[in-house]
Amino acid sequence: MQKVLPSGFLPEKFAAVLADLRKAVGKEYVFSDPQWDLPAYNDAYLTTPAELHQPSAAVAPANIEEVLKVLAVASRYGAPLWTIGTGKNFAYGGPAPRKAGFVVLDMKRMKRILEVNEKHGYAVVEPGVSYIDLYRHLKKIGSRLWIDCAAPAWGGVMPNTLEHGVGYTPYGDHLMMQCGMEVVLADGTVVNTGMGALPNSQTAHLYKYGFGPSMDGLFTQSNYGVVTKMGVWLMPEPRGYRPYMFTFEREEDLEAVTEALRPLKVNMLIPAVAVTAGLIWDAAVQVRRSDYYTGRGPLPPSARQKMKRDLRIGEWNFYGALYGPEPIMDNTWEVIRDIFMGIPGAKVYLDADRKGEAAWEYRKKLGMGVPNMTEYNLMNWIPNGAHIDFSPISPVTGPDAMRQYALIRDRCDAAGFDYCGEFAVGWRDMHHIFCLTFERDNEDSKARANKLFGELVRAASEAGYGEYRTHIDFMDQIAATYNWNDRSLWRQHEKLKDALDPQGILSPGKMGIWPKTMRKEVKA
Amino acid sequence: MQKVLPSGFLPEKFAAVLADLRKAVGKEYVFSDPQWDLPAYNDAYLTTPAELHQPSAAVAPANIEEVLKVLAVASRYGAPLWTIGTGKNFAYGGPAPRKAGFVVLDMKRMKRILEVNEKHGYAVVEPGVSYIDLYRHLKKIGSRLWIDCAAPAWGGVMPNTLEHGVGYTPYGDHLMMQCGMEVVLADGTVVNTGMGALPNSQTAHLYKYGFGPSMDGLFTQSNYGVVTKMGVWLMPEPRGYRPYMFTFEREEDLEAVTEALRPLKVNMLIPAVAVTAGLIWDAAVQVRRSDYYTGRGPLPPSARQKMKRDLRIGEWNFYGALYGPEPIMDNTWEVIRDIFMGIPGAKVYLDADRKGEAAWEYRKKLGMGVPNMTEYNLMNWIPNGAHIDFSPISPVTGPDAMRQYALIRDRCDAAGFDYCGEFAVGWRDMHHIFCLTFERDNEDSKARANKLFGELVRAASEAGYGEYRTHIDFMDQIAATYNWNDRSLWRQHEKLKDALDPQGILSPGKMGIWPKTMRKEVKA
Repeated sequence: MQKVLPSGFLPEKFAAVLADLRKAVGKEYVFSDPQWDLPAYNDAYLTTPAELHQPSAAVAPANIEEVLKVLAVASRYGAPLWTIGTGKNFAYGGPAPRKAGFVVLDMKRMKRILEVNEKHGYAVVEPGVSYIDLYRHLKKIGSRLWIDCAAPAWGGVMPNTLEHGVGYTPYGDHLMMQCGMEVVLADGTVVNTGMGALPNSQTAHLYKYGFGPSMDGLFTQSNYGVVTKMGVWLMPEPRGYRPYMFTFEREEDLEAVTEALRPLKVNMLIPAVAVTAGLIWDAAVQVRRSDYYTGRGPLPPSARQKMKRDLRIGEWNFYGALYGPEPIMDNTWEVIRDIFMGIPGAKVYLDADRKGEAAWEYRKKLGMGVPNMTEYNLMNWIPNGAHIDFSPISPVTGPDAMRQYALIRDRCDAAGFDYCGEFAVGWRDMHHIFCLTFERDNEDSKARANKLFGELVRAASEAGYGEYRTHIDFMDQIAATYNWNDRSLWRQHEKLKDALDPQGILSPGKMGIWPKTMRKEVKA
Repeated sequence: MQKVLPSGFLPEKFAAVLADLRKAVGKEYVFSDPQWDLPAYNDAYLTTPAELHQPSAAVAPANIEEVLKVLAVASRYGAPLWTIGTGKNFAYGGPAPRKAGFVVLDMKRMKRILEVNEKHGYAVVEPGVSYIDLYRHLKKIGSRLWIDCAAPAWGGVMPNTLEHGVGYTPYGDHLMMQCGMEVVLADGTVVNTGMGALPNSQTAHLYKYGFGPSMDGLFTQSNYGVVTKMGVWLMPEPRGYRPYMFTFEREEDLEAVTEALRPLKVNMLIPAVAVTAGLIWDAAVQVRRSDYYTGRGPLPPSARQKMKRDLRIGEWNFYGALYGPEPIMDNTWEVIRDIFMGIPGAKVYLDADRKGEAAWEYRKKLGMGVPNMTEYNLMNWIPNGAHIDFSPISPVTGPDAMRQYALIRDRCDAAGFDYCGEFAVGWRDMHHIFCLTFERDNEDSKARANKLFGELVRAASEAGYGEYRTHIDFMDQIAATYNWNDRSLWRQHEKLKDALDPQGILSPGKMGIWPKTMRKEVKA
């Protein structure tokens, strides 16, 4: 890698930035060697040239005082920072900045678990705390509180929440379960949101909305501030937990499954974020594509059939769980089982039926908030596997699910990729996650993946479907689909950006929100 | 009432404002006669001179086009608007503006129910839709969706949500159940938040957070925009509903009740917003103070005893409900009953035990989202009753509940008022509502109420308790208690105000957020 500088910076000026950053955090926490230090801040899963996202340096403060010093340096020189937390952020850009030359503000060293409140059921964490960190800590202190984790154990509790991530227990809507933030703004102002703005507050992590405008949402998927502390509500271990799985034979069963699911979800008989996973998703966590087919193009029906038989999975596989005392689980189970088993060809499995199988075990763990890394096996589906995730929000209806599925599948077939997807159901929507798996060392595969992704964004938005999150390479394109009334929402985002960070030093371009200083350059 | 003008307006200029407003909405919807029109926009429950909150005029647009015209007029002249929805807003300022001379922007004519989505469980409403409107509409169309209403039936679905109000079913956290907004900003820009920013969006009211910063919270308890449309999730009628009540004998039982409640709530065995109501609250919805005591000062123990016997209520009365299929309710009920009945002197009541009693019947209705007006009887406790509500957030612990109760009770006793209060429990907090009832035609009573309220705000904030909402007269005082780090949160609120409404035409002073143009004047 070549050395790069922030746009418009001469080497002397950038050397001064680095010198000041070293004063701020100590020289061992400023990284600027393009050969030795900075590759750690590349996105391993890029479909575009790495040069486009090559940071000029990275800086890792140890505490809020050092964050303030770093911001003061950035502000003094007008240097763009790109904030990252812990976790890998694979599929969405990893640690790489939106544009080459940005300085990565790496929050991973701030990894204190500041409070676990057993009585009220919450924890307060810094940005560097991962799910596995929090899980282990709770075990160590003998807590009976569950966490709700993202699929990969290394994910960050706060970063995932800030990106509107979901987990798989009844607390799976992470932002809904967030309560209270400490945020550092670009000008160095430290803000406590909500009830935390009252000195000596007794309720900073107990009541979400505070007094006056509720600002927490503003600091999610945004570049308005650096969140340094966050409260998250934790669910007490329920009296019982019983995960279940239904498999369905036919591709078109997705329609019936989704129609069956909606009333169960809306009526809260399915309290958690349950998942309808496609055949290849469930296969790929256990086997390799080449075990079943070595040709190019879509898997032939015979290979799919064999895979289904071998792994006892269906074209679609629904994972959910019951929570609570046994009699309550029994009662709910009868309703759920009867409804899903009404779909011809459906099969049902409980824990005793599948113990030890990878695809089952990790879903069982996720449903009770036990972090693990099984899903990362998806990357073994093809050699040198990498992925970018296309994540449109879907209504919970059969026709919508089928339309989104077909929209992706047909384009996958044409572009030479497998449809590896799942639908995770929330309060009223499904997060449809298509894990677009490509070969990271194959330029043709990368180019096709990039092209396909762009097509998917276009086709989905034309059908009225928008994504909830995306890779840094597609932030502008997707932001541009949220363009109702001449981009009126993004014009407000820009207005707030200019008000809170007039110099534009914090994560320029995040979610398509550019500071005034760069807006013309980008549009041009 | 005298005619008043917006601060700094000469009569000629204001006449021009009125003329333009008449052009905007038609002359029959511009109200400016201080004798005939404007008393409707006074707060009937003021403890301060009405002159302080006398509007100069009111204007009631019929649709968003007229809202835009009104905003254009206000902007042209720099005239301050004070936005109100439907509902009475009693206890929090009614329809009256924060300062004399503001023009009330009355949204009550926009009362369309734009959509009821039976399948997904939501409705989309305009600001003028009341709970009783929505309830009746759902009945009329044969919907099986419940609403979750505030205590008074005339309350507004959107306005209550915007003020962070709560109801009493499992969907009682109104803001949590809100999804998607249409907002008009001061400059006339119309914004769709969340997924609604995507043209032809299929998920505008199905997924809360959209792509990028989540802005909805910004438009709650704020003066950053005029919300003209909102989605609210509705709960499908559960298979069963079984309200219950426990009474407790002694004042100090509040501690044990709250300690019993917390694990039940955090473990979701109490799924709804349940309430611990004090003796006088439950009495006042059924009888008058003078029925039991005609003297001044605190009710003597003998009167309290008689009231408890006559009405079969306790010093504290806990109202909750079970939801779901019978076996599930049976199972949960055993747990709940055993826990509360473990408190010495506790008595339990189900519907059959109290049918027809006012205090029971209205709680039963609220727990299933049936709007009614019973709670308004509180105002009959004393002659010419009026109230302002002091609403601190409390942790769900016995010591905190007792501390807040004692803090209020002792000051009530000294100031000559009754403690009429309840604790409504949410996910992790209790909204403690003290209904400070005074005599609206008695200047001494009003002055004492006003003084007491200010003392309560001070005492609560010193103990680390903040209010979630308040009367217009106390917005500045309470905002000033949220002053951590040199008011850093309010400084951001001001910054956003200046960015989104630089002229300061929208609801100046709402929640202590003043536009730049008035900030000095107010501080001075």
